[in-house]
Amino acid sequence: MAGDKKRVVGVDLGGTRTRAALLAPGGRILVEVNDKTPVTGREDDVLEALFELIDEVCERGRIKPKDLEGIGIGVPGTLDVKAGKVLAAANLGFRDTPLRHRVEKALEAKAYIENDANCGLLGEHRSGAARGLDDVLGIWVGTGIGGALILDGRLYRGSRGAAGELGHAVLVPGGPACGCGNRGCLETLASRSAIERDIRLGLARGEKSALKRLAARGERFPAGALGKALKAKDPLTMAVMEEAQRYMGLALAGWLNVLDPSCVVFGGGLPEKLGEDYLQPIRAEAARHTLKAAGRPARIVAAELGDRSGVLGAAGLVPGFK
Amino acid sequence: MAGDKKRVVGVDLGGTRTRAALLAPGGRILVEVNDKTPVTGREDDVLEALFELIDEVCERGRIKPKDLEGIGIGVPGTLDVKAGKVLAAANLGFRDTPLRHRVEKALEAKAYIENDANCGLLGEHRSGAARGLDDVLGIWVGTGIGGALILDGRLYRGSRGAAGELGHAVLVPGGPACGCGNRGCLETLASRSAIERDIRLGLARGEKSALKRLAARGERFPAGALGKALKAKDPLTMAVMEEAQRYMGLALAGWLNVLDPSCVVFGGGLPEKLGEDYLQPIRAEAARHTLKAAGRPARIVAAELGDRSGVLGAAGLVPGFK
Repeated sequence: MAGDKKRVVGVDLGGTRTRAALLAPGGRILVEVNDKTPVTGREDDVLEALFELIDEVCERGRIKPKDLEGIGIGVPGTLDVKAGKVLAAANLGFRDTPLRHRVEKALEAKAYIENDANCGLLGEHRSGAARGLDDVLGIWVGTGIGGALILDGRLYRGSRGAAGELGHAVLVPGGPACGCGNRGCLETLASRSAIERDIRLGLARGEKSALKRLAARGERFPAGALGKALKAKDPLTMAVMEEAQRYMGLALAGWLNVLDPSCVVFGGGLPEKLGEDYLQPIRAEAARHTLKAAGRPARIVAAELGDRSGVLGAAGLVPGFK
Repeated sequence: MAGDKKRVVGVDLGGTRTRAALLAPGGRILVEVNDKTPVTGREDDVLEALFELIDEVCERGRIKPKDLEGIGIGVPGTLDVKAGKVLAAANLGFRDTPLRHRVEKALEAKAYIENDANCGLLGEHRSGAARGLDDVLGIWVGTGIGGALILDGRLYRGSRGAAGELGHAVLVPGGPACGCGNRGCLETLASRSAIERDIRLGLARGEKSALKRLAARGERFPAGALGKALKAKDPLTMAVMEEAQRYMGLALAGWLNVLDPSCVVFGGGLPEKLGEDYLQPIRAEAARHTLKAAGRPARIVAAELGDRSGVLGAAGLVPGFK
């Protein structure tokens, strides 16, 4: 395969796991690998692991990094895309990190970087739930709540590359403390971790729940466990989830009014695993609080590509890669 | 001037007054006229008055409508810009009105239509407070609260032309009833008419205020009178205004997080007449609730062109008019 310049690598550099894929034109995934992201908080450790993972995916695909068309990387942080720098990515220990330069120097291939939520939505836009649509809002629900915008057919980054910070809309002034320093942000009311916190609080108050044993083991509540508890009509889980959905629907209504998208894609474990059980109450609450307008209201759907949206969107950063 | 095809007419077709201006290239206003908009609620009455006003501004400028480069018209309603139709403009009695066609037929000149808030922001972008900026949020505060977006240097309309509906963000579920059918919309908490309503309620409760006589006469509170009461430290006016500014600041924080604009332009009587007295508390409240990001935060300023932003923006709809 040496000499074939039509392969690209897409990387989803997550705070917990890093995924890399080798792709052929058309977006076909040839090889996929993933590994834990080092949690030492040292920039160099994360970079070394990143280079190794890209080397590995190339080796399995029998291509040298320098023969790639390019490498696209999604990063959970704020970026200066033009300068190829990560301004800040707290979970990775990155601060003013010249990521593009570091990758290009280490691997002798052209590199392109973008925010991870943007890559996720670009992936869904390329070949998932938002295929071919011009105005799309992407909402990623996990430990936090992230967002991304495709407007008039193009990724919209804002004046400082900071657009799409949906999770920090303050819905309840004086509400639960948020990692950002404010209180009552949507993230503290409707993220998977907020739901987990409220179920644990309910258990501590002595309420019953099917999730009691999981909580006692001190483990994170995965989306699947929440979905199972909902299906079993676990009252505590239902009550907590309903409140989270109510806040999400209210916030979504405001974004629908401002952006008038044709489609909203919800990504992350909760929407992807729970599907309509997650989406339907949010849709109903949003409809109640959205200004009616002529024409078809936005479709509100779950992401289709799961973990792959990030690597697909990142691969698409490489110019000319269709 | 017959034969000179480089003149355009810009019209701001308001629910209360209609303004029209004849402009030369560069945006210089040659003639301005304005008149009350007929309030019969009949589409034909509004259209007849519109044609007459355009005839008048042309006559004073000694040009025939058919010799114009074109006519741009801002309309307070939802539009299908491509089809040249006003889908709905309640204050004008328009419903599925083929406005472009009607104007072109009556005046034998090319016509272009756009939402009025969009025209206002386009005017400020062309030659006012947002000159030369790529990512701008426009907020118009009056009887209602309207908005407009310039993103990546271009007017952003959304998938149905309904983007920028800032006034109907629900901040207080179950709050004051709004004309849109919902409750607790920003418009019911922070518009000029919401401020007037709350001052009247205070007076009815027996509170003292310098605005008592104005209220007794049953007149609308103009922005100037509110500004004067604030300057005189009228306690009721101050308390009501502070609450309105707090809500506006909170809503603004959410939009800043989502859109990351470089500039926010506040238009309408309150911001333009009260200036910093209006803006400063909103700026402070927004800063408290906005996620910090690297780079310069958005400038938050008052519109500079007053009543002229609408006609200037409308004139700019005519292709090739610089």
